[in-house]
Amino acid sequence: MTFDATIASGVIGDALDSVSALVSECKIHVNDDGLEIRAVDPANVGMVDLRLDADAFEAYDADGGVLGVSLDRLEDVIGMAGSGDMVQFALDEETRKLHITIGGLEYTLALIDPDSIRQEPDIPDLDLPATIICQGSDISRALTAADLVSDHVRMGAREAGALEIAADGDTDDVEVTLDSDDLLSATVDEDAQSLFSLDYLDSIEGPIDSDTDVSLLMGQEMPVKLRYSMADGDVEVVNMIAPRIQSEG
Amino acid sequence: MTFDATIASGVIGDALDSVSALVSECKIHVNDDGLEIRAVDPANVGMVDLRLDADAFEAYDADGGVLGVSLDRLEDVIGMAGSGDMVQFALDEETRKLHITIGGLEYTLALIDPDSIRQEPDIPDLDLPATIICQGSDISRALTAADLVSDHVRMGAREAGALEIAADGDTDDVEVTLDSDDLLSATVDEDAQSLFSLDYLDSIEGPIDSDTDVSLLMGQEMPVKLRYSMADGDVEVVNMIAPRIQSEG
Amino acid sequence: MTFDATIASGVIGDALDSVSALVSECKIHVNDDGLEIRAVDPANVGMVDLRLDADAFEAYDADGGVLGVSLDRLEDVIGMAGSGDMVQFALDEETRKLHITIGGLEYTLALIDPDSIRQEPDIPDLDLPATIICQGSDISRALTAADLVSDHVRMGAREAGALEIAADGDTDDVEVTLDSDDLLSATVDEDAQSLFSLDYLDSIEGPIDSDTDVSLLMGQEMPVKLRYSMADGDVEVVNMIAPRIQSEG
Repeated sequence: MTFDATIASGVIGDALDSVSALVSECKIHVNDDGLEIRAVDPANVGMVDLRLDADAFEAYDADGGVLGVSLDRLEDVIGMAGSGDMVQFALDEETRKLHITIGGLEYTLALIDPDSIRQEPDIPDLDLPATIICQGSDISRALTAADLVSDHVRMGAREAGALEIAADGDTDDVEVTLDSDDLLSATVDEDAQSLFSLDYLDSIEGPIDSDTDVSLLMGQEMPVKLRYSMADGDVEVVNMIAPRIQSEG
Repeated sequence: MTFDATIASGVIGDALDSVSALVSECKIHVNDDGLEIRAVDPANVGMVDLRLDADAFEAYDADGGVLGVSLDRLEDVIGMAGSGDMVQFALDEETRKLHITIGGLEYTLALIDPDSIRQEPDIPDLDLPATIICQGSDISRALTAADLVSDHVRMGAREAGALEIAADGDTDDVEVTLDSDDLLSATVDEDAQSLFSLDYLDSIEGPIDSDTDVSLLMGQEMPVKLRYSMADGDVEVVNMIAPRIQSEG
Repeated sequence: MTFDATIASGVIGDALDSVSALVSECKIHVNDDGLEIRAVDPANVGMVDLRLDADAFEAYDADGGVLGVSLDRLEDVIGMAGSGDMVQFALDEETRKLHITIGGLEYTLALIDPDSIRQEPDIPDLDLPATIICQGSDISRALTAADLVSDHVRMGAREAGALEIAADGDTDDVEVTLDSDDLLSATVDEDAQSLFSLDYLDSIEGPIDSDTDVSLLMGQEMPVKLRYSMADGDVEVVNMIAPRIQSEG
C-alpha cells in the first residue's frame, strides 16, 4: 500500500473536524482518487461520510488500503501547522507508521489496527421530501437559541418554503423561522418535522464555517441529512442524525 | 396591561446589566413614560434603581403594570441579538408570557409571579456632603488594585477635591489618589470616608463602560451612591452600597 | 541602603517573568550599576541569572544591598501598569517596605527577610562545545510539538550546524530539525546531545518573545544554557537546565 500526499493544513484540518465531532478514532479508506472516512458515534445516532478528492491535495500518490488513525493525535499534529503551511504524509507500510512532515517538524504517527475500530455505518439512501439550503451561520444561531431552553429541538420544513427550528423548555419556548427571504433555496414536497438531540446537532454544526452553504434534507419523523462541501468542492461532507421519538406535545 | 416595545439590543442589554449585577430576578414597573426597576441583593447591602425612559425605545406602547422576570433568562435571550439588532417585546397578558422577537427568532419568556420576588428597597434620599465625578475606568483601576491586597476598601473624598481609595492587606497596602487633575469634578463640603465590601463595588462597577462619567456621592461612615446614565440620558442608574463598620486601624 | 528607581513597566515586567518562571520569591541584589537576581527552582534543576543594567532605568539611585521579594505580589502590582506607564520604586529602609508608584496608584510591598529565601545557586562556568543561535519562536514551536508525545525531550547540536529537538512517546515520535538555513548561527565543535524535562524547558521558554534571538549552549550529557537579552541589551538573562539521565533508547 502506498500513501504519499501533500495538502494545505487548513483543508485537511477543516475536513477532519467533521469526523472528530463524532468519533476519536476512524478508518481512512485510501484510493487512487482520494480519501473517504465514514463513522458513527458510539450511540449510533450521528453519522458522517467525508470524501476528500485527490484534487484537494497538492500532491497525491496512493493505491487502495485502509489506515486506522487516532483523530485526536492526528489533529494535534496538524494543529502545529501555520495557516499557510503544507502537511506532507508518507506511509511506511512495514512499520505501519505514518510520517507527517510540516516544515522542519517530523511527527511519526503509529497507526491503529483498523479491526479494533468501531464498524463503519451504512448511511442509508433515504428519500427525503424536503431540501433546504441555508448558511451555516443561520443553523448555528438557531441551535444556540434552542440551547437556551432545552436539550432537544424540533426541526422542520414547510411546503411554503420555510425552515422551522423550535424548542420547548420547562417554562420558556424558542422558535426560529427562516422563510424564503432568509434561505438560499427551499424545495419542500410535503411538510416535514422531526425531533433531534441538540448535542448531536451542535457537534455536527460546530465545524461548519458561518458562510458555508449547507443543504438540510428532512422528512416527517425521519433522520436529517446535512450536506456541505469545502475547498471548492474537493471536500464533501454528509452528516446524518437519527431522530428522537417525538414526545407528546 | 399593555406592553409592546422595540429597543436596540445594546441599550436594553447594558441597562439590565446594572440590575443583574445584584439580583437574578426582578420586578419591572411598566408605565407609559418608561420602565423602572429597583432591586436589593439578598444581604441588603447593594441596591439599584434603573430608569429607562420611553425615549430609549424605538417604539413604545404601554400602560401601568408590573412584570416579574428572570434576569438570567432575559439576558440570555438579548445576548442572541447582534450588535445592531432590534429587540421587540410583546406581552400576552392572558398567558402572562412575554414574547421577545429578534430577527426570525421568537423567544417566549414565562413571567414570574411578582409577589414571589424579594421586596423592592426604598433607596433613601441621603444628604451626602461629597460629590465626585470621574470616569468609569478610574474606579475600575482603583478597585482592581485594592483587590490585590484585601476584600474591603476605604473610599473617601477630601475637601481639597480629591478621591481616595485605599485597602490594607495583611502585609501590603494600596492607595489610589485621584486629584482635581484626574477628576471631572469634585464638590466636597467636608471630608468623607467609609469602608465598603470590594465584592459589592466590583459587581456594581462591572457593567459601567470605561468612558462613562460616574458621580460618586459620599459621606462620613455613610453609604456611597453611584450615578450614571447611558443612551444619551434615556437610561439612568443609581446604585447604593451600605458601608461596613470601620475596623480599628 | 538606598533604592530609588524608575523604569518602564514593560521592561521590568518582562525581566521578572524570567525569574518567576522558576521561583515565587527571590533576592534582588541592588548595586550602583544595576540589579541582579539569581535563583534555582526547589528541585535544583532550573536556574536563572538576570541582570538589569542601571541604563535599563529612566532614573536610578542605589547603593549596595539585598531585597527579599515575593515575585507573585511584585508582578501583580506591575501588572496594574498600562503599556507605556512608568513604575517608580522607593525603598523605606526603616520599615523594610518598598513603595511602588504607578500613576496615582501607590502600592506598599512588605519585603521578605532575605535569609528566609532559598539559597542562590552558583551557575557553573561550563565549557560547552556547541552554540546555536535561533529565534524564540523556533524553540517554542519545537517544544510544543514535543509536548504532544512526551514529558522529556532530547536536544542536540550536529557538527554540520543543525539543532535537533526530539521526543519519543509511547506510540508516536516527534523530531524537529533546524539546519543552517533556519538558524541565525551555529558553532558546533563536536556533536552534543542531552535529555531534558519539558516542564523546565517550557517554563524557561515561556517568557521569551518569539522574535528574540536566543543562544543555546550545549554539550554531550551536559546542562543546556539559554542566553538572551532584552531592552537593547540592558537586560540580560542566562538560564541553565540540568540534564536528566539518558534512558536506554
